[in-house]
Amino acid sequence: MSLRSEIFDQPAAARHQLESSPAAIEALVAQLRAQPVRSVVLAARGTSDHAAIYAQYVLGVRNRLSAGLATPSVVSLYDGDPDVRGALVVGISQSGASPDIVGVVEAARRQGALTLAITNDPGSPLASASDHVIDLAAGPELAVAATKTYTTSLLAIARLSIALADGSPATPGTNVAASLAGIPEAIAAALTVEAEVEAIVAEVSAMDRCIVVGRGFEYATAREWALKLKELAQVFADPYSSADFLHGPIALVHPGIPVLVLAPSGATEAGQVELLRDLRVRGIDTVVVSDVPETRALGRWSLAIPAGVPEWLRPIVSIVPAQLFAYHLTLARGLDPEEPRYLSKVTRTT
Amino acid sequence: MSLRSEIFDQPAAARHQLESSPAAIEALVAQLRAQPVRSVVLAARGTSDHAAIYAQYVLGVRNRLSAGLATPSVVSLYDGDPDVRGALVVGISQSGASPDIVGVVEAARRQGALTLAITNDPGSPLASASDHVIDLAAGPELAVAATKTYTTSLLAIARLSIALADGSPATPGTNVAASLAGIPEAIAAALTVEAEVEAIVAEVSAMDRCIVVGRGFEYATAREWALKLKELAQVFADPYSSADFLHGPIALVHPGIPVLVLAPSGATEAGQVELLRDLRVRGIDTVVVSDVPETRALGRWSLAIPAGVPEWLRPIVSIVPAQLFAYHLTLARGLDPEEPRYLSKVTRTT
Repeated sequence: MSLRSEIFDQPAAARHQLESSPAAIEALVAQLRAQPVRSVVLAARGTSDHAAIYAQYVLGVRNRLSAGLATPSVVSLYDGDPDVRGALVVGISQSGASPDIVGVVEAARRQGALTLAITNDPGSPLASASDHVIDLAAGPELAVAATKTYTTSLLAIARLSIALADGSPATPGTNVAASLAGIPEAIAAALTVEAEVEAIVAEVSAMDRCIVVGRGFEYATAREWALKLKELAQVFADPYSSADFLHGPIALVHPGIPVLVLAPSGATEAGQVELLRDLRVRGIDTVVVSDVPETRALGRWSLAIPAGVPEWLRPIVSIVPAQLFAYHLTLARGLDPEEPRYLSKVTRTT
Repeated sequence: MSLRSEIFDQPAAARHQLESSPAAIEALVAQLRAQPVRSVVLAARGTSDHAAIYAQYVLGVRNRLSAGLATPSVVSLYDGDPDVRGALVVGISQSGASPDIVGVVEAARRQGALTLAITNDPGSPLASASDHVIDLAAGPELAVAATKTYTTSLLAIARLSIALADGSPATPGTNVAASLAGIPEAIAAALTVEAEVEAIVAEVSAMDRCIVVGRGFEYATAREWALKLKELAQVFADPYSSADFLHGPIALVHPGIPVLVLAPSGATEAGQVELLRDLRVRGIDTVVVSDVPETRALGRWSLAIPAGVPEWLRPIVSIVPAQLFAYHLTLARGLDPEEPRYLSKVTRTT
């Protein structure tokens, strides 16, 4: 199975995810109602780290949970044992095999903290170490670059957030339930831009550097897009929250270095539109991903994502044209997206 | 006052920091003893974000505190109000003026959480919003690129960690007290490599991309070094924890793209030495910062930092040759380190 077919498998993988592990989510939420936690600690590496960033925003905005990313080296390198009693500790890993992530969850469990694994392998060490397991159910992911395990991780987090907010995964609010059920179709709609992607990458294939900017919920998308560009296309892609971008790295922009901007409708829209206008005045080439035609018109190039997806669920969809972009840019640069240099599917960092 | 003179002012600034705000630290620690917190939420942007990363490691390893970075946009963009009752919420900002950082601290205080400002302006909005204030006492920092407010922020965090561990800032363990008192001198020793820095940058001034790798306590240093290279020298500098580096971005390395490696003695040493050997076999140019002569010998170029500084305090010293490197590379590239493009000293992100 090739990377491209796994990208296109995402509507089906999302459908499988929506049907996966309802009992696990229900049991976890029941336990959280009995023993509420005030904070969430997320442990992840690589692509899964971006799912953890998404979780920070979703749980913070929708569930009033203060969620932070663990620093696995505190445990694995320094034998540190931060007190996480009273927290929910979540390990996110496609393979469930990275020893440092397993180490964070094991340390938490020794302390008696509630633990959750989000993984595509329910038989993995991470799953075994955790009280609760949400199976991504994305099907085998054979390409080295993770795609469908990323979107299904986001979906699993969204389902958890809904269940926490609504009391039971079986009874989410009607609108939320309909939005969630519509995600596979929205991903399918996002996949229809492949021809536009190919036309853009043909024009930018010489680029060896770029900047990716997203904010709020879409910061995770900016990070994930940049990682895909690095690991597949060997492009120095630097991801920023628009807020941090203005604190220094804006010095890097100049004509010839494209800026990829996630600028969908919602709370971040006005700021991103302002940034796009600013970049336009400076003569910077931009690629805009947005559901708003007027915003797309501000970019040198643009890619449409479907309208009607709620802002907080949109990262599950907005990464899809970005995946296609990274895939086709890799081909356009004469590289092999199936065999990125030096990488293996499971990285066992300790 | 120029950037270079502020870099060289750091031994004096560190001495001032060591004498600053002892009563504030004592009062905060007393309150934390009366009402212990289980977690710490850190809010910061830009260079201060790297001080927050240092705090995550220090508080996690030395004080068993689970410390996470806040996502200020959750509050500022989405009106989220994550529950931080029972946590210590720390805002770190040189100017104390960034509205989103002030917003996180204000929201925490409304909930009744304990708050701390670490800032160079004790009259700033951030200081006013906080229960406790540690004044960096670094003296005016006029250069746009922060240097002495970074090292003094780290020092303030180290002092807080010592006070928390030992009960009172007045009675740290003898060795720790001596190590802390020796930091200004260690910074002065680290500043003596300027001639070596100038020789190296003369050879690499054409570089427009590089990778910076550090792990554990030195991950903060890798991030800060990369930011200085971006904002001053307009180099696409990509910082990684060695662990994350192996999860994908290692695909970017090839001859002509230097890798800057923080490889001091301690828990991360063996892994970094292995990475250096690997990079050497691949023909990659490296700049090694280390206190270990044998490790420095593995680099194409190297910069010495003084021996004898404890691993957890070393980031206060190891950033110093990195600052000099960024400063001189900027000059070597024909750019003005005093007036980086598009940046202003205070960035008021909302």
